[in-house]
Amino acid sequence: MPLERKDILDMESLSVEEIQLILDTADSMKEISERPIKKVPVLRGKTVILFFYEPSTRTRTSFDIAAKRLSADSLSLSGDMSSLVKGETLLDTARNLEAMHPDVVVLRHRFSGAPHYLAKRLKASVINAGDGTHAHPSQALLDMLTVRRRKGTLEGLKVAIIGDIAHSRVARSNCAGFTKMGATVTLAGPPTMIPKGAETLGATVAPTVEDAITGADVVMMLRIQKERLKPFSMSSEREYARFFGLDRRRLALARPDALVMHPGPINRGVEIASEVADGPQSIILEQVTNGVAVRMALLYLVLGGSRNADPD
Amino acid sequence: MPLERKDILDMESLSVEEIQLILDTADSMKEISERPIKKVPVLRGKTVILFFYEPSTRTRTSFDIAAKRLSADSLSLSGDMSSLVKGETLLDTARNLEAMHPDVVVLRHRFSGAPHYLAKRLKASVINAGDGTHAHPSQALLDMLTVRRRKGTLEGLKVAIIGDIAHSRVARSNCAGFTKMGATVTLAGPPTMIPKGAETLGATVAPTVEDAITGADVVMMLRIQKERLKPFSMSSEREYARFFGLDRRRLALARPDALVMHPGPINRGVEIASEVADGPQSIILEQVTNGVAVRMALLYLVLGGSRNADPD
Amino acid sequence: MPLERKDILDMESLSVEEIQLILDTADSMKEISERPIKKVPVLRGKTVILFFYEPSTRTRTSFDIAAKRLSADSLSLSGDMSSLVKGETLLDTARNLEAMHPDVVVLRHRFSGAPHYLAKRLKASVINAGDGTHAHPSQALLDMLTVRRRKGTLEGLKVAIIGDIAHSRVARSNCAGFTKMGATVTLAGPPTMIPKGAETLGATVAPTVEDAITGADVVMMLRIQKERLKPFSMSSEREYARFFGLDRRRLALARPDALVMHPGPINRGVEIASEVADGPQSIILEQVTNGVAVRMALLYLVLGGSRNADPD
Repeated sequence: MPLERKDILDMESLSVEEIQLILDTADSMKEISERPIKKVPVLRGKTVILFFYEPSTRTRTSFDIAAKRLSADSLSLSGDMSSLVKGETLLDTARNLEAMHPDVVVLRHRFSGAPHYLAKRLKASVINAGDGTHAHPSQALLDMLTVRRRKGTLEGLKVAIIGDIAHSRVARSNCAGFTKMGATVTLAGPPTMIPKGAETLGATVAPTVEDAITGADVVMMLRIQKERLKPFSMSSEREYARFFGLDRRRLALARPDALVMHPGPINRGVEIASEVADGPQSIILEQVTNGVAVRMALLYLVLGGSRNADPD
Repeated sequence: MPLERKDILDMESLSVEEIQLILDTADSMKEISERPIKKVPVLRGKTVILFFYEPSTRTRTSFDIAAKRLSADSLSLSGDMSSLVKGETLLDTARNLEAMHPDVVVLRHRFSGAPHYLAKRLKASVINAGDGTHAHPSQALLDMLTVRRRKGTLEGLKVAIIGDIAHSRVARSNCAGFTKMGATVTLAGPPTMIPKGAETLGATVAPTVEDAITGADVVMMLRIQKERLKPFSMSSEREYARFFGLDRRRLALARPDALVMHPGPINRGVEIASEVADGPQSIILEQVTNGVAVRMALLYLVLGGSRNADPD
Repeated sequence: MPLERKDILDMESLSVEEIQLILDTADSMKEISERPIKKVPVLRGKTVILFFYEPSTRTRTSFDIAAKRLSADSLSLSGDMSSLVKGETLLDTARNLEAMHPDVVVLRHRFSGAPHYLAKRLKASVINAGDGTHAHPSQALLDMLTVRRRKGTLEGLKVAIIGDIAHSRVARSNCAGFTKMGATVTLAGPPTMIPKGAETLGATVAPTVEDAITGADVVMMLRIQKERLKPFSMSSEREYARFFGLDRRRLALARPDALVMHPGPINRGVEIASEVADGPQSIILEQVTNGVAVRMALLYLVLGGSRNADPD
């Protein structure tokens, strides 16, 4: 079964069947990364442009490795290296890139909606690698893959997402993805960081972190932008940890087999204590590993790959 | 027929036959970029170093894609990442690169003549990707390829080049290339931006933009460096557009089938109006597409490739 | 014979047999770089991450070319592009990289000991590409390879290392490597730049540069960091050259067939005069060439390659 879709822009627009197809494909891609020769020739001669307007080790490297494992040629452009310094608009830059016949453009951009804007105007597939506070679908898909591999299914799971919900594209995409697959999502965090109308995300807002975590199968902590704490005092990091951080005591409220997740990079001792980040329930590094598999699946599927064909 | 030439430094030094060989080879390279597997193994095991001392999305990416489509290994070095921060001279850096046995060094440098200087001292082929205000031969070749594919020939065509001629390596290389192939070139722009002795470029200087455009087959607009307008008032961009920019009204003076070109990135509403840049006569994006083909041809030919052999 | 060692961290920990194995393997790797197709498929499907927290043209490019010549996929991460801007610790970054299943991490870091710290915690092989003032084993190995190819052996050679010994990881690794292989090493430089207890490096400290050079088979000049001269007057560069630089007159004190070496990039007219750097005894560019071969050998051997197997 192929994916009948040119672009991957957000979780809201993917159907349950499409999400299943992506996760199933990622499962088989995972095996490739564990072989001695971690490479298959399925995307040989395809060109993938990694176009990152914001710094990012993790996501860019993950897409880069994914492209190389499928034998595609990948090229990295960062905003500051690009013609942007000459004042070109995003669309002109993208059209110029497109004129070089890439097959996929992976875009990270600080403006919400930038990938959607490009996707309508380019023939190449566009994969959103994070746009403003809007969406980060490959992150949500890797989170869902990681939980599904641990729990067998997403259906009926209780997922708590804790932190700065308002500014988090990770939270937004995970809400949409997990609820679509039959999980329930509860949000908690500082009142100023819970968006008005959070219920429209399909999630419930809990009055306290403890309420959200209690009985949860999955506790997903969000990275707090330290800059957002600055207006408060120097003690604000410690205070954030005290009221909203995940430590062993708070984790004990969740189910005993609850999984601890974080999109990274983590602020140790702020939103998550080291004892928990490095503890037995943490699957943070599995998320990273699965990120490569999910991105391999996305690149493979948008370029017409089919689940039933052996990618090898 | 092979190209008997180690380096590509400027248009002045290329013969008519060499230019034809490059354009013919580029024509066949174009097909490769349109296949599902956009890659041939002709330069497998060759090393191409992209050495850019000035920022450039377009040219660097174009060479990078060209190298990868021919299966060469390409490495990007930018001036600021390099040992330059430690104060090394260009020649020492280049000798050190050469000691690693690259096959081609593609150089972008702010000093006119830097590629010639290196070419004499390196065994590797040097391709000039733009040096100061001097030359940008791969740009001129892609411009000529684009026009030739549209018009069938360059001979007898009337080409108008408009803008800051004095600081433009693109203008200089296009003058040399188009006149060599039998076209006539007319220049126009702000009087302070027309170099003294422009006639030595083989071109005519027109008193006004209108004069240059009238009856032209090709109208090539140059990018205006906004910094150069700064000494004048804030209204200078609008004024530049009024006196020297290309809009529909001015384009109507050219032949009805005239082609509109620009080396990019464009300043919309300054040297070119959006109605023209995006209009039916614009071949700006074809220029970009053909850039990859021309650079494939250059890499292939300097490394001993022959026109008659099928690159596949 | 394979190398029974996951990481290459410093010269002190390598045995004489291991050093010989690396140099012998590098000798056969050298041939690959001189073929028309400079590439062998031995590391196909392997992932090499080049993780450079300090700028470096030479070393990064050398490892990058080495990886590509062995058909590995290499990815470059620089400190400032990475999540470091988000304040992540080295270990968290490295664990995250590791979760993507790289086979080798090549690390350049300003803190002495950073590669050792990572090597203990990662499953991937770690190759130290320079850590603080501590070690730079691939540089020492390429220096030793270059001398061995010229002199046939290292045993019994007199090696003089001149300059800022105290801050030089190159000096430290070369002391350890050359003395281990039976050479004697003499150090000289400004008194403030000779570390206390330099004898523990296995070397002798000479009172003057002249004393160190007299009768030497190899004169290795170290790069002087100009910043370190700044506290002194503007004339300090000239003064450094006068008291500690290598010119023809001083080189005449060495054996007539003495080799002149420098890890680069050189400061012409400061620690080394151009007449010597470009003279007949200089093997500075051979060092660079051999750098690729040594790094190919290291990548090949840490990934289980065996000396007896033909890498082709």
